[in-house]
Amino acid sequence: MKAAVWHGRKDVRIENVKEPPAPAPGQVQVKVAWCGICGTDLHEYLGGPVYIPLDHPHPLTGVQAPVVIGHEMSGKVVAIGDGVDNFVVGDRVAACPIIGCGKCRWCRNGSMAQCDQVAFLGTSWTGGALADRLNLNDYQCYHLTPAISDEIGALVEPFSATVRAVAQGQPEPEDRVAIVGAGPIGLMALMAARLRGVRQVVAIEMAEGRIEAAKLCGADEVINPQREDVEKRAKEITEGQGFDVVMECAGQPASVLMAAKLTRTRGHLVVMGVFEKPAAIDLTDVVFREKTISGSMSGYGLYDETIRIMADPRFRGDLLITDHIGLDDLIGKGYQGLLHEKDEHVKILVRPE
Amino acid sequence: MKAAVWHGRKDVRIENVKEPPAPAPGQVQVKVAWCGICGTDLHEYLGGPVYIPLDHPHPLTGVQAPVVIGHEMSGKVVAIGDGVDNFVVGDRVAACPIIGCGKCRWCRNGSMAQCDQVAFLGTSWTGGALADRLNLNDYQCYHLTPAISDEIGALVEPFSATVRAVAQGQPEPEDRVAIVGAGPIGLMALMAARLRGVRQVVAIEMAEGRIEAAKLCGADEVINPQREDVEKRAKEITEGQGFDVVMECAGQPASVLMAAKLTRTRGHLVVMGVFEKPAAIDLTDVVFREKTISGSMSGYGLYDETIRIMADPRFRGDLLITDHIGLDDLIGKGYQGLLHEKDEHVKILVRPE
Repeated sequence: MKAAVWHGRKDVRIENVKEPPAPAPGQVQVKVAWCGICGTDLHEYLGGPVYIPLDHPHPLTGVQAPVVIGHEMSGKVVAIGDGVDNFVVGDRVAACPIIGCGKCRWCRNGSMAQCDQVAFLGTSWTGGALADRLNLNDYQCYHLTPAISDEIGALVEPFSATVRAVAQGQPEPEDRVAIVGAGPIGLMALMAARLRGVRQVVAIEMAEGRIEAAKLCGADEVINPQREDVEKRAKEITEGQGFDVVMECAGQPASVLMAAKLTRTRGHLVVMGVFEKPAAIDLTDVVFREKTISGSMSGYGLYDETIRIMADPRFRGDLLITDHIGLDDLIGKGYQGLLHEKDEHVKILVRPE
Repeated sequence: MKAAVWHGRKDVRIENVKEPPAPAPGQVQVKVAWCGICGTDLHEYLGGPVYIPLDHPHPLTGVQAPVVIGHEMSGKVVAIGDGVDNFVVGDRVAACPIIGCGKCRWCRNGSMAQCDQVAFLGTSWTGGALADRLNLNDYQCYHLTPAISDEIGALVEPFSATVRAVAQGQPEPEDRVAIVGAGPIGLMALMAARLRGVRQVVAIEMAEGRIEAAKLCGADEVINPQREDVEKRAKEITEGQGFDVVMECAGQPASVLMAAKLTRTRGHLVVMGVFEKPAAIDLTDVVFREKTISGSMSGYGLYDETIRIMADPRFRGDLLITDHIGLDDLIGKGYQGLLHEKDEHVKILVRPE
């Protein structure tokens, strides 16, 4: 079957790979409907390996490059391994990319994403989702309800991460939430905050296309740091208080420094961005105003809830999916589109058949 | 009466000042028993003004330099203003330095320390505690129980800040807590963690005198970064997990970077230190391990609880009070002692009569 295989930095090939074997006990085989391209895929392509094991097999899965990539997937169950009783052939599913050891403190206490040996679909698992089919552990699969199309199903993984991050900030309906960075994750965090019932959501973004996207996705206002003094405008909007909850979705040193400042006294900054090196924060301000900063990683544990939320007609997946491509266009239209026309793209879905 | 008056950087004078007037309605007059020297006093002396209003009157109190300093106080009520019904002449009290506007969101919701216009005893209040007497708002005063001597009473203010910071980290009895920096605040945080019932408390400190003090104050172990690889030793102690709760009490860029690293997955770093400029934190680690960082400021709200805790015989105030001096020795023995013999001193108490 055809698949996208990471061989090395800037060396992702569309090639024929072996079909997956019959699913092992506790596993299901899924035929992929759609697979979205994630920012981490671009990192692996341009600057990787980040999570792909290169010189040694992954301690949990034994997987090592070359590896089939792709993890933001929806699909249909086509085969069932022994002992699987919560799926039948024909079930439509989304997949959680997290594979844990099942034995450690984190796996055994509801935090598999924090497993010390964690493996991920698409970087360190036996099959990635940019392929016709793959085997998954049954615990990775979540039923898609009829309200969720296959295309929207491919958004469950990234959207769940923002649902969980926003939940971590615990905004109340009357709170004011700021989204710093309106890329794919920022826009989804924006929708997640809106669907949680937050009254006022403000985005901070400088790229024109993303500013428009943020408005369409429900931002009451978008502050452009290239045109306005963000702190001044934030004070006006929040009556001098700062935002109750701030979501850092940009992963840039300047943006997190600002995000912490924009957080109100006793407010909460949730960091979702990934940073190349340690980033500076004004900790004296954090101390005096008793701010909280926390990191949020993955949507693990909230997949069913996310699927329920996405059935709300206010979830506008159509605003998030900006292109549909075939596997052969992954590099040319997919990666290059996201890199060079990033103002025009949020999420590009790939049909890997 | 004699008082210590801040006139400018490196210009603190022991001089005669006017007696306080009869206490206004809602105020009490207190004769000071003991007043401790705080790190912020040294900052005001060496590098101030930090909080002392220099060029303009404080917006809430109208106070402006020169100002009578000192805030870690115990004393006895000697006069009562109209409308005060929770104190009588002769009551022994400790004082909370925080004066709020009483009208803002924070003052009206139990967080006076976060008042936008907050004033502090000893920097922006009409009288400081390094004087024979001063007037205080009745809400600033807390009854000292018979178990608390006047000397120990002067430790209520700094100890309450550590009780509150440790409470913010919410360590469970079986948790492991690390204290980064074993200066006065670190040692008190160590005792606060111990008195909260935490099983294992480890300090990280490089000054020999403070290492010994930390052991006496109850540290199970003190890791010296000059002699050991702190991360390696921390992993050994915590079975590879990292500390459940880490208290940053040093206020140094290197120490907070390390403190965040030493915090376990899903653990909590509480920052008490004050930093001269923004400090770098490995936020990718914070995201992947879903760590929480929060700032804690003052012991506001926990004074009565702190006074109860200090009655426990395991609270060893004797280990914290390293000298008693008179007001005339404030600079020579007090400030110079803390600056140049800091290994030997934790808290120096001043008798300002």
